[in-house]
Amino acid sequence: MSNEAGRGDVVSACLIIIGNEILSGRTQDTNLAHLSQVLNELGVQMREARVIPDVESVIVDTVNTCRTEFDYVFTTGGIGPTHDDITADSIALAFGVALEFHPDIVALIKRREAPPEVMESRLRMARIPVGASLIDNPSGGPPGFQIENVFVMAGVPMVMQAMAGTLTKERLPGGRPVRSLTIGAFLGESQVAQDLEELQSQHPAVDIGSYPFFREAGYGTNLVARGTDPEELASIGEALKVLIENHGAEPHEGGV
Amino acid sequence: MSNEAGRGDVVSACLIIIGNEILSGRTQDTNLAHLSQVLNELGVQMREARVIPDVESVIVDTVNTCRTEFDYVFTTGGIGPTHDDITADSIALAFGVALEFHPDIVALIKRREAPPEVMESRLRMARIPVGASLIDNPSGGPPGFQIENVFVMAGVPMVMQAMAGTLTKERLPGGRPVRSLTIGAFLGESQVAQDLEELQSQHPAVDIGSYPFFREAGYGTNLVARGTDPEELASIGEALKVLIENHGAEPHEGGV
Repeated sequence: MSNEAGRGDVVSACLIIIGNEILSGRTQDTNLAHLSQVLNELGVQMREARVIPDVESVIVDTVNTCRTEFDYVFTTGGIGPTHDDITADSIALAFGVALEFHPDIVALIKRREAPPEVMESRLRMARIPVGASLIDNPSGGPPGFQIENVFVMAGVPMVMQAMAGTLTKERLPGGRPVRSLTIGAFLGESQVAQDLEELQSQHPAVDIGSYPFFREAGYGTNLVARGTDPEELASIGEALKVLIENHGAEPHEGGV
Repeated sequence: MSNEAGRGDVVSACLIIIGNEILSGRTQDTNLAHLSQVLNELGVQMREARVIPDVESVIVDTVNTCRTEFDYVFTTGGIGPTHDDITADSIALAFGVALEFHPDIVALIKRREAPPEVMESRLRMARIPVGASLIDNPSGGPPGFQIENVFVMAGVPMVMQAMAGTLTKERLPGGRPVRSLTIGAFLGESQVAQDLEELQSQHPAVDIGSYPFFREAGYGTNLVARGTDPEELASIGEALKVLIENHGAEPHEGGV
């Protein structure tokens, strides 16, 4: 819960999480939270995420919808060596281009010897769409790739995080990074609702949200302000502390 | 990675996760994995999830797109007491109906006394779209609601889980529950790729996936089969064990 302030100048991103294992509940996605934070530092805001199954037509449609709606699109998952890892094929189809073996990836994969049928499966990971550039993979495996505004990355969090760490402001021109500030208190959300609404109306460029929590120590609310102007954020922080104290509670910087 | 077998008779669901705090990476969603498992037991398969910001037009568009594409739609988040909790308003808008105070929720909320301005904020949670029915909330707070095939639930995991626990097969007629079976081994994904492809082609109604892992103990792959026929699953389990042993590794039932 928060507002839609400051969307005009936002450089936006969408993450497409490809994988039946996430949809079935077997695996807990953690890539969204990680990538959002990485992008934020680059001044790019995650505005949507979609979790979709490993189905070619769904991947193609989703990529083609999202790449026109958002400045950047990221995908995670489905770039492994098995016949069912269909992300590269689907991205090529979405852009109407062929897949080709990339000589650098072929060389990388061939460094580790393997029986012919194993090598054949591994080499699937060397295929990227014509016109794509590589995304380095410091974790040591095959790289991801970028085609136009779509960045295709691994699904395994350790590998995805290694790839995300190589993204630079040069590659993803963004806006100003969004900073956030959290102040928590043992106060119910409804106790601060009206004051928050007033504070939000005074700061339309900042996104002020309230997030209830329930702990053994009691229930309360964390108040979060997100914006690009550090001075404005600092003054909101002071206002939040006063607001909490006025309700007879103690403000906890950084949240409870 | 897996196939799209058996989609024809699937009773499908989509989860819409509403919340800037999930998109910003501040909060890790866990509702998708939980709800997928609850629905699975009811014979309903989660086929897509979308994480969207607290923006009215985005909520309305997403709900209206998804409620025609999937048998059931669930939303989590944005039903708290503050002015920025706009889910109920957005759902009413999506269906073109008004919001009304539900007398049972009003009575529930008024049981706990509060100053008038706090009560006013709390009573926002008593508004549901005309024609909606309630989703019980055994955690004690205000209930969620259902309108047509859309189920509106809390975002706080403890509360969402309490609501999800009240969903019944009568309320969500589904298909046969999907069972899954996992067998892990310290084998690379590419080592088993070709055998898996063959096994998958013999069992088109079952979804066979391989998920690599990297642990201190070594790297390997968990093989997962998901399907509605317990006997077929059991025979696939035996085939997976043989497949792993043929590669000189030890099969670990339940996964590594």
